[in-house]
Amino acid sequence: MINLSPVHQRYFATTWHAVAWYPELWPERIAADLALMREAGINLVRVGEFAWAEFEPQEGTYALGWMTAVLDACHAAGIAVMLCTPTATPPRWLTRDHPECLRVDRDGRTFVHGSRQHASHVSACYRSHSRRISDVLARAFAGHPALVAWQLDNEIGMHVDGDFSGEARLAWQEWLAQRHGDIVTLNQRWGTGMWSTRYDAFSDIELPGKTPFDRHPGNPDGAHSASLTTDWWRFVSWTNQRFLAEQAAAIRAHSAAPITHNHVSHDRLTPAGLMEVVDAAGIDIYGPPEGLAGSLSNLEWMRGARRRNDGSTLPIAVIESAASPVPGRSAAHAAFYLGAGAHLVGYWVWQQQRSGQEMWHAHLVTAWGERGAVWPEVLAASRLMQRLDPLLRAHPALPDRVALHESAQARAYAPVPGLPTDGWAYWQQRLQHHESLTNSGIPSVGLLEEHDPSGLDVVLSPAMPILTDDLLRRMTAWVEAGGLWIIGPHAGYRTEHATVPVEGGLGRLDALLGMRTLWMHGLNGAAAKLLDEAVVLNGRGYVLEPRDPACEAIGVINDGWAAGRCWAVRRRIGRGEIVVLAYPATQSKRDAYGAIVARLAATRVPLRTSSSPGVAVFLRDGACLVVDYAGAGGWVDVPEASQDLLSGRSVAVGRSDVPAHGVLMLKYEKA
Amino acid sequence: MINLSPVHQRYFATTWHAVAWYPELWPERIAADLALMREAGINLVRVGEFAWAEFEPQEGTYALGWMTAVLDACHAAGIAVMLCTPTATPPRWLTRDHPECLRVDRDGRTFVHGSRQHASHVSACYRSHSRRISDVLARAFAGHPALVAWQLDNEIGMHVDGDFSGEARLAWQEWLAQRHGDIVTLNQRWGTGMWSTRYDAFSDIELPGKTPFDRHPGNPDGAHSASLTTDWWRFVSWTNQRFLAEQAAAIRAHSAAPITHNHVSHDRLTPAGLMEVVDAAGIDIYGPPEGLAGSLSNLEWMRGARRRNDGSTLPIAVIESAASPVPGRSAAHAAFYLGAGAHLVGYWVWQQQRSGQEMWHAHLVTAWGERGAVWPEVLAASRLMQRLDPLLRAHPALPDRVALHESAQARAYAPVPGLPTDGWAYWQQRLQHHESLTNSGIPSVGLLEEHDPSGLDVVLSPAMPILTDDLLRRMTAWVEAGGLWIIGPHAGYRTEHATVPVEGGLGRLDALLGMRTLWMHGLNGAAAKLLDEAVVLNGRGYVLEPRDPACEAIGVINDGWAAGRCWAVRRRIGRGEIVVLAYPATQSKRDAYGAIVARLAATRVPLRTSSSPGVAVFLRDGACLVVDYAGAGGWVDVPEASQDLLSGRSVAVGRSDVPAHGVLMLKYEKA
Amino acid sequence: MINLSPVHQRYFATTWHAVAWYPELWPERIAADLALMREAGINLVRVGEFAWAEFEPQEGTYALGWMTAVLDACHAAGIAVMLCTPTATPPRWLTRDHPECLRVDRDGRTFVHGSRQHASHVSACYRSHSRRISDVLARAFAGHPALVAWQLDNEIGMHVDGDFSGEARLAWQEWLAQRHGDIVTLNQRWGTGMWSTRYDAFSDIELPGKTPFDRHPGNPDGAHSASLTTDWWRFVSWTNQRFLAEQAAAIRAHSAAPITHNHVSHDRLTPAGLMEVVDAAGIDIYGPPEGLAGSLSNLEWMRGARRRNDGSTLPIAVIESAASPVPGRSAAHAAFYLGAGAHLVGYWVWQQQRSGQEMWHAHLVTAWGERGAVWPEVLAASRLMQRLDPLLRAHPALPDRVALHESAQARAYAPVPGLPTDGWAYWQQRLQHHESLTNSGIPSVGLLEEHDPSGLDVVLSPAMPILTDDLLRRMTAWVEAGGLWIIGPHAGYRTEHATVPVEGGLGRLDALLGMRTLWMHGLNGAAAKLLDEAVVLNGRGYVLEPRDPACEAIGVINDGWAAGRCWAVRRRIGRGEIVVLAYPATQSKRDAYGAIVARLAATRVPLRTSSSPGVAVFLRDGACLVVDYAGAGGWVDVPEASQDLLSGRSVAVGRSDVPAHGVLMLKYEKA
Repeated sequence: MINLSPVHQRYFATTWHAVAWYPELWPERIAADLALMREAGINLVRVGEFAWAEFEPQEGTYALGWMTAVLDACHAAGIAVMLCTPTATPPRWLTRDHPECLRVDRDGRTFVHGSRQHASHVSACYRSHSRRISDVLARAFAGHPALVAWQLDNEIGMHVDGDFSGEARLAWQEWLAQRHGDIVTLNQRWGTGMWSTRYDAFSDIELPGKTPFDRHPGNPDGAHSASLTTDWWRFVSWTNQRFLAEQAAAIRAHSAAPITHNHVSHDRLTPAGLMEVVDAAGIDIYGPPEGLAGSLSNLEWMRGARRRNDGSTLPIAVIESAASPVPGRSAAHAAFYLGAGAHLVGYWVWQQQRSGQEMWHAHLVTAWGERGAVWPEVLAASRLMQRLDPLLRAHPALPDRVALHESAQARAYAPVPGLPTDGWAYWQQRLQHHESLTNSGIPSVGLLEEHDPSGLDVVLSPAMPILTDDLLRRMTAWVEAGGLWIIGPHAGYRTEHATVPVEGGLGRLDALLGMRTLWMHGLNGAAAKLLDEAVVLNGRGYVLEPRDPACEAIGVINDGWAAGRCWAVRRRIGRGEIVVLAYPATQSKRDAYGAIVARLAATRVPLRTSSSPGVAVFLRDGACLVVDYAGAGGWVDVPEASQDLLSGRSVAVGRSDVPAHGVLMLKYEKA
Repeated sequence: MINLSPVHQRYFATTWHAVAWYPELWPERIAADLALMREAGINLVRVGEFAWAEFEPQEGTYALGWMTAVLDACHAAGIAVMLCTPTATPPRWLTRDHPECLRVDRDGRTFVHGSRQHASHVSACYRSHSRRISDVLARAFAGHPALVAWQLDNEIGMHVDGDFSGEARLAWQEWLAQRHGDIVTLNQRWGTGMWSTRYDAFSDIELPGKTPFDRHPGNPDGAHSASLTTDWWRFVSWTNQRFLAEQAAAIRAHSAAPITHNHVSHDRLTPAGLMEVVDAAGIDIYGPPEGLAGSLSNLEWMRGARRRNDGSTLPIAVIESAASPVPGRSAAHAAFYLGAGAHLVGYWVWQQQRSGQEMWHAHLVTAWGERGAVWPEVLAASRLMQRLDPLLRAHPALPDRVALHESAQARAYAPVPGLPTDGWAYWQQRLQHHESLTNSGIPSVGLLEEHDPSGLDVVLSPAMPILTDDLLRRMTAWVEAGGLWIIGPHAGYRTEHATVPVEGGLGRLDALLGMRTLWMHGLNGAAAKLLDEAVVLNGRGYVLEPRDPACEAIGVINDGWAAGRCWAVRRRIGRGEIVVLAYPATQSKRDAYGAIVARLAATRVPLRTSSSPGVAVFLRDGACLVVDYAGAGGWVDVPEASQDLLSGRSVAVGRSDVPAHGVLMLKYEKA
Repeated sequence: MINLSPVHQRYFATTWHAVAWYPELWPERIAADLALMREAGINLVRVGEFAWAEFEPQEGTYALGWMTAVLDACHAAGIAVMLCTPTATPPRWLTRDHPECLRVDRDGRTFVHGSRQHASHVSACYRSHSRRISDVLARAFAGHPALVAWQLDNEIGMHVDGDFSGEARLAWQEWLAQRHGDIVTLNQRWGTGMWSTRYDAFSDIELPGKTPFDRHPGNPDGAHSASLTTDWWRFVSWTNQRFLAEQAAAIRAHSAAPITHNHVSHDRLTPAGLMEVVDAAGIDIYGPPEGLAGSLSNLEWMRGARRRNDGSTLPIAVIESAASPVPGRSAAHAAFYLGAGAHLVGYWVWQQQRSGQEMWHAHLVTAWGERGAVWPEVLAASRLMQRLDPLLRAHPALPDRVALHESAQARAYAPVPGLPTDGWAYWQQRLQHHESLTNSGIPSVGLLEEHDPSGLDVVLSPAMPILTDDLLRRMTAWVEAGGLWIIGPHAGYRTEHATVPVEGGLGRLDALLGMRTLWMHGLNGAAAKLLDEAVVLNGRGYVLEPRDPACEAIGVINDGWAAGRCWAVRRRIGRGEIVVLAYPATQSKRDAYGAIVARLAATRVPLRTSSSPGVAVFLRDGACLVVDYAGAGGWVDVPEASQDLLSGRSVAVGRSDVPAHGVLMLKYEKA
């Protein structure tokens, strides 16, 4: 792999079977553990994750020898190490002697010491201590031959909201001042004329604490201005990013090894922000086996975040997942992760927790030191990974041609201002669109909205209220060069500052498409057409009116109060085309997004495949990988006469059964 | 209209098609907006509602010229103005420089600046500022020819509980001292011997904050004494009333124009208290179209609150409602409001909010300046209002003969002490009884319990735990003069201090009726009779025992542990009659209240009509107005052969179809 | 009864028909009330319960004469008195002048004065005042001839969590220091290496306030370490026990009368702790009539807590229950309580509350002074109690042979750390197992885990995560002497410090049984066998592997990923046997616990009987008492040809109908 340093190359070139290990809790078991890991085919351990109190038992007093011994033992056993910064769990001396490190919740309650993530990412004190311990670890272990990568913190933002401390209030005001320059600009951007909210100074702007309007049991703190709330989430993301970036800088000063983080899908850190910090993408996947869609959606956006100039993508890591005793499940899931672009399949946790928390969690070895229920399945996963590895290298993934935007702006925007679930609401909407594509057999990759779409044929942008000027500029240039951009539904109706655009209902799209957005209003089951296909429109959307002859109405509403109105348009621009879908649509009660995209993208969508729900298909060069993720068995429509390289069996074109947790590596006979 | 000043007469004599307008947010659109308003048939705008920061950008510095320009432009366009005090939204300098203005919630959290209603109606500081801005506006605009009315604040008490600040605590203790005189009296009235709660001084009495007893997920703060809680709601209502009254006084010092307020139905301000403050009744109606019952119930109590000596009522205003793009809906709703006694049909909001909050709300003009989806419907409503106006004047409403009490005491009383939904619970019970009457074709008007029932034939008093001595005195005198008073169910079982009456289970009713209330207990589907009709009794109620020969048992329980006991009595008193219904009753699983009233009131109920749910019928002199409010279509039993003055069509006696959102103005041929 | 003082003997030897009475609220009614009580067959009143403000109107000023008059009047009327300490309701002067007495909730909010239980059981100030008022009452009334017993406080811990005040924080740290000796030991026991939670001193350990991990709507405060949480509940129980014990000591210094407390089943006080404090067991039973299982389960553990050396049990008291107007219900419930070992059947409340709270509660006399709806039923209960009393004495209860453990450790252990429902969750699990036994016709008694099992044949220990060393020692000795101990499901998988045992998956059971616990994992409907019976396994459990030839696999899993594994074992030890059931099992979707116990205990289970749900059967010497508790009617399988001593009717062996709320006292003809 070009452009990668040797130490990065080593990390990315290897397929890792990994596990989280806390040897500090079981020092007497280190040798036995390593022997068992070798038996299980484990070749990478994550260590140090919550061990701050071990590394620094008193402030400024370090005890690092035990970790040196661990790394030495790993190296001797041929097991590589990902070393973690322990900043999710401050030692007691830190929270006791520096209580300003503790985060405060929306109610003004300070979190007490205990569990994890109770320290504030805004706190200058906590940031300083976090930088220091990162520096100490980097200095001590950067050169160790066992070390192949670093992990920053743990699942940042997973269990917590923003910090509502006094220090956070000042940081928020400073951040706003940086972003908006002067208070007049902020007032104009936020439209603070409404409800007399105008601010005289940045110091006037409160954290979004309790306020009366729109309080209800699901939103007990009331709703602040959508502009304030949207900036608030941007600020929270920025504080989380800065917290990680400061650790990364401390490590990079001493170590050339790649840096990663075990992301969780709905956290409070923009994907692009995360990618700016890390060298290597990593994610925790804990969805249930029924949740193929969620896992695939998460993996696809993260893989897409690592696209390179040649259109290929860097491998990604499934840092944590739960091993399962169900026969074949762990192997099938490992194959699924590899198919989706992972080079690391990791488990949490090696040994069952003995104390404190999560004692019930899946584990490889019991707290009393025996191979656990999942043991044979982990071994099976290891064997399958070893068999698949060369086959997947021989048949690399096809270049991505269709991408689904992943939008930090959408995560920040609050459909109902003040709801703590905003980012989650977007995640769910995006997931639904991704699933609809998958159900229509259209493979897609994620595209961060901040990134360049070059090399792609089709880009889809549903559920993106905010289309920034910068995004429009980049996308329009790509369309002119031949791209097909399908925008919406639920896109373009807010400015970057979460206000309603006043140059047109869908902002600059109106002029770009040569149309006029007439009005926003809800529909509840209105019959409509898209081209000549019948669909039903539901939910909030926009009625459009083509004005420019080049703007073609491709969707018409057939009944209800908006009968005869247009809800979808398209326009050729340069060598490409933009489509706007202004309402969500269903067919026979089912979401129609995938079918619409298939119809509109037509020849641009690469080889499509069908499979039953729960069965994933990954198209490769001259082959395809088929995995029954869900474990209920199903079928796949095999695109070409093939041989299953795993079983040696010949498989004809057409529908073919897939057994429960079955994995097929189908090499096309023609290829 | 007699007794009204010319300026009041002008306001009441006109039928207004109104809209809320925030020209301070779109100063460049003022001329264009007024032209569009004329196109839409709008003849009144509400302005200034949230514009405090525009009126007073810094403390004591006023900027009123912009509003003068707005009023001038309105006047020139022939559009009248209702000017609002902006006190629902304090400017930031006020909450920043006078933080004692902010309200505190039950948890002790101070609301932060943002959204609206975060200032305390108890705060002397906030009240002073509110009086001052009201005075400034009244001085500046009282003489403007465009001005026809004032609105105080906005939807007072809608999103907030009482204030739990230290200042509120002192005000509460002072209010209690005023009400009860001395602490010994309070202890006696509240029965504080129970649970050792006796107070040594008024300063001992806490705000109803968190307490252990009866805490559960639906009541996380626990339950205080019912007496304390009931007085607490009275106090909260009083503080809200005083807040409005202070503004009204400031305005009246300079302006003769009528003063109104846009009430919401379940707020924390007694109806009589509200009526004491305002000259003109106004309400916001946002129920769904299925919610005919709720809208009608709200309008009827407010209309009844404006009964005059001759039994007619002053017109009322629907200050806010949502325009709809559904064909015919806005016109039908306008006709419904006029039928229910309104002379003003208003919309919120003229132009879609560009920023902050409620950007999704229905609007007439989009944020980007175009006629919105509802435009043709608003025009249709305007046309229909203009056609109906002379027809309704030619056929005035029949005098009200049946009234349903509207009880501030019931709103204050807490069935489960401490629940924040107390007033709401009463509102729902009253609504259910009103709906039952409507379903039985019995038109009714609201009667505030503080008001005089003279001129009415029948008064109904369900769901009124507290019947005050004053009410009993007034009602008994009216009964002696010929009235029929139907009391209950759920009436009379608490004293004015929310305790159990000890002179008899239903207090003074026992002696008045010549009966003995034996005991309270729940029934669950017990068969019973009322006269000779079969009913089923459910819920908590009282078993009665007639003692005086003049007290007639008219309801007997047939099965269960109370078989043979009496649950309903009546007694002639003077020329009238009192009926007590001591249990809620159903027939065939449906609420039987309307049917019971129809049976008991017999000849006293005026012409009854039937219609399908969702279709409203308003009886007029020689005519009736029929409106399909819900929009699903239905039927009406036409009482006399008629001509529909709107369509010119003849309509026979008997069941006649009403199309979706249809409006019929049926003139009786005989009349 | 041997070993009891005369005053204790008098209390226990009498069958009491009791009621709670608040004569301080109705001083003018004392004579009338006592006359009515005699009419109703009441022979004991509970007084003084909430009367602190009457006893001590100002700090240090006592007014006791009114109570002397009450006791004198009772004595004259032949009605005995249970005098209560009034410490659930502090007077206002106390909370006002000593605000440090008020308890603080988990959010840091101080409870305001009002309702009850708002004072802290940790507060030195409140404890001192509580001791003093107890001492004052004991000095004043110890010698009064009407007094037969004392009640401490009221339903301690019912409405409140632990106290989170600063004083509580120090007390918690001191308690931990006492329990663990030094911080190194605590760190080792709690396993604080995990997540860097290690403490440097006891003063480092916080109260379990808000923390981020595992926060969700059902657990808004997050989860602390299971070890900390488990110790926290132990501490809360200890503070409640100490609070009661201090009062008991104050009383015992002056009075020889027995001391009791009206316990509620899911409070925060260990059963053994409660029993250490009181002389006489008492409980409040407010379950619905459908809830036979809950009432019986509560009564059985409390009765078992009073087992004597001869295997018989001391009578217990149903201190509060609700009288009912439903014909026969109160009599049937009284019979049920007597059958379950009660010698006191009490009602709450004599006269309907006039004010404040609970005015809706069941009562014997109305607030307006009349006999209430329940009156004839209370008379019927009184008559039935008088008839049953000699019959039950003539046919004493059979000695208990089967016992179900009641585990304070299980109540303290938090399955999901931090949940406030922990004790409740255990209570529900235990209840389910008890109900399963009852449904299988197996009578059982409760056995506190701290008590001696001698005299019993079979002991069952389901839902007990923590089996202490002490318990294992006592139980093993009893097994060696011939006992059958059936352990689990859900037993033995945590140490005393709520950690995972590392010597084996089920701790010392592994070695004791001669097996190896392989792993913990969930099953979802796996087919299995127990001996030759088919069962289905569900939920979390453990797979076992017999190692010692003496360890017999008696349960095997038949399908799923654990097929062929063992889930249940047994081993003879000395003259007895231990069985371990490692998974919950069902048969035909129903809980199979009772059936399994019946099968395993075989000949050891005494005479079994069957009855329909809602019908209770109490086996006596030569007779049995049958009660339809639920009131729906049902049947009983009569074990021997009998005569019903109440009706005189002969009853054949086999299924016999029981009418609604029917009570049969069946004397066996052979006996």
